[in-house]
Amino acid sequence: MPIITLTTDFGTRDGYVGAIKGVIARIAPDARVVDIAHDVPRGDIAHAAWVVATATREFPVETIHVVVVDPGVGGARREVIVETRGHWYVGPDNGVFAYVAADAHRAWLADASGFGHAVSPTFHGRDVFAPVAASLANGYRPSGLEVRLTGALPWGARPASNGRIVHVDQFGNLVSDLPAEDAGETVLIAGKAIPIVRTYEDVPPEHLLAYIGSAGTVEIAVRDGRADQLLSVRRGTLVVSVAAGAPSGPYR
Amino acid sequence: MPIITLTTDFGTRDGYVGAIKGVIARIAPDARVVDIAHDVPRGDIAHAAWVVATATREFPVETIHVVVVDPGVGGARREVIVETRGHWYVGPDNGVFAYVAADAHRAWLADASGFGHAVSPTFHGRDVFAPVAASLANGYRPSGLEVRLTGALPWGARPASNGRIVHVDQFGNLVSDLPAEDAGETVLIAGKAIPIVRTYEDVPPEHLLAYIGSAGTVEIAVRDGRADQLLSVRRGTLVVSVAAGAPSGPYR
Amino acid sequence: MPIITLTTDFGTRDGYVGAIKGVIARIAPDARVVDIAHDVPRGDIAHAAWVVATATREFPVETIHVVVVDPGVGGARREVIVETRGHWYVGPDNGVFAYVAADAHRAWLADASGFGHAVSPTFHGRDVFAPVAASLANGYRPSGLEVRLTGALPWGARPASNGRIVHVDQFGNLVSDLPAEDAGETVLIAGKAIPIVRTYEDVPPEHLLAYIGSAGTVEIAVRDGRADQLLSVRRGTLVVSVAAGAPSGPYR
Repeated sequence: MPIITLTTDFGTRDGYVGAIKGVIARIAPDARVVDIAHDVPRGDIAHAAWVVATATREFPVETIHVVVVDPGVGGARREVIVETRGHWYVGPDNGVFAYVAADAHRAWLADASGFGHAVSPTFHGRDVFAPVAASLANGYRPSGLEVRLTGALPWGARPASNGRIVHVDQFGNLVSDLPAEDAGETVLIAGKAIPIVRTYEDVPPEHLLAYIGSAGTVEIAVRDGRADQLLSVRRGTLVVSVAAGAPSGPYR
Repeated sequence: MPIITLTTDFGTRDGYVGAIKGVIARIAPDARVVDIAHDVPRGDIAHAAWVVATATREFPVETIHVVVVDPGVGGARREVIVETRGHWYVGPDNGVFAYVAADAHRAWLADASGFGHAVSPTFHGRDVFAPVAASLANGYRPSGLEVRLTGALPWGARPASNGRIVHVDQFGNLVSDLPAEDAGETVLIAGKAIPIVRTYEDVPPEHLLAYIGSAGTVEIAVRDGRADQLLSVRRGTLVVSVAAGAPSGPYR
Repeated sequence: MPIITLTTDFGTRDGYVGAIKGVIARIAPDARVVDIAHDVPRGDIAHAAWVVATATREFPVETIHVVVVDPGVGGARREVIVETRGHWYVGPDNGVFAYVAADAHRAWLADASGFGHAVSPTFHGRDVFAPVAASLANGYRPSGLEVRLTGALPWGARPASNGRIVHVDQFGNLVSDLPAEDAGETVLIAGKAIPIVRTYEDVPPEHLLAYIGSAGTVEIAVRDGRADQLLSVRRGTLVVSVAAGAPSGPYR
């Protein structure tokens, strides 16, 4: 049974997510639809890109992932199909695939003509991405000219040996792209040196900690609190890795 | 595999949606349950009616749609089954089916006795609508006397050639019931004349626009902003269609 | 088709719920995943315990229920499998199973080694609970030493004949653990005597009422309003059952 996952900023108070599910049920009745996240902040492409990269890697190969965080719908950005590591992705070429396409990948324009739905200029989730994903579930494979993805995130390539904050999760944890293998004993961020520990209980409540998070990268959190409020840093902020010898101690 | 969709105002922090899913899994283990929306504003019947009408039309025929936005639960309003355009609907007769029942339809009282659950006076979603929907998925069909739906929305029939705002979505877009074929080149609302364009990028950021939305009716939005905050209009507000010649230009 | 339910405090804006679903899809492709609630307030163990107890009882036997409200993840609390009334539960031993384990039950440590995922110290939902639940869906059964659950809620055993507020739902309704059979004609809470009626419409709008709620226990609500705001009581507050003769009348 093919799986189609959905990641959107449509929320769960309107009928938009339901409409997408209806189209998929109509075109690919055997596909199983899995909700990943529908409360991506409105139009937040970088947020969606991280969610998609970290959640979809857990799925079996041949899963089809639909991403509809698409503030430029109907405008100049293109609709694409991306294939990487045995997974299929369908969505706008606006940066939402920046992380998953960092690996070797192939990409094609997503052409929904003939896939069962008239195309409105403002709801490509329903009219383009859902029909294309359902068709992939039915065995359709793109052919013809491959394209180069152009969507990008506001921050460029990761600086050697260091990282940046790339995601703030709903607990206020600051997730960086500094991988475990490059992380020293301490990280510096926003003027603070924070020792890397194993888990939350390694510091007292309401204290800052750094640790290797579930994505395999350094995260900064406040035990039973919110690091985003304590540190007030933006995504893109540099996280410097320090091997040893940096001052340590409790931080509040 | 029969499909049962769920639209409620139960949110996703309590066990109410889960209880409904449990009852369906118990009575109709082969049915596939699809979440449409659980964050309908509390008791907002008109909101639910629009969500149900626009989302459920995308599903295949024979789908069963459960709607639990039911501020009068346990009181005088009736529980009903509605059949229209090959779809089944189960919920309270309080107006949530006002749009879907605008088409030719049949309706019956929903009688859950003998369908596997004692009926509490405050949770008909679990005790009446879920068992009835699950039974429909199992092949049950209502018989006996048909009833006339009495639930209605606060606004009456659409005025000829014009429309009303009938829904405000989570992006603050104002959705009207003025169909594309009656829409001229410009709409008047709240003292403003707004030309109808194709999509968001046809106006500068933070400007008002009107366009034919995903429901096939006129919508009013602010590019990268919220039309509900800019215009402060209520649902029910008149939207007047103007053929041509109205003043146009950027609106903020 | 085995069913696995999910109850978490992960929200629906990040990739955490999606990652759990991906792991389950990979290990147990035939399992059907059902969302119960993902907006449990952060780290609110008592809230999760009530949601799990009231929602999961509606599911068929042999359902597997995963609960990830786990503020102590990576710390001293244990990961457990609980079996009771033919249902399986997987999660932290921190009190989330306090209500379901009030019935006769068996419990084991949840050992995820060999179940397909490296274990990070901060995301046991993905790395321990999901693989164990998926393995249960595949027919795995725990063996070896049983353990005694130690997780508990802030309030102890229910006082004879009376009850406590144990849950506040998203409508602001105050749910107690006073069962229908111990409820008299009136309840006393926060200095107010509230007569027990059948349903909301038995009192005027914006008035307090008590009734036997969907869990079979006394609930206190405000018709078309919020009892939590009107009464300002905390969970754990005593609810006294009064047989008859208490003063009654409208309360605002």
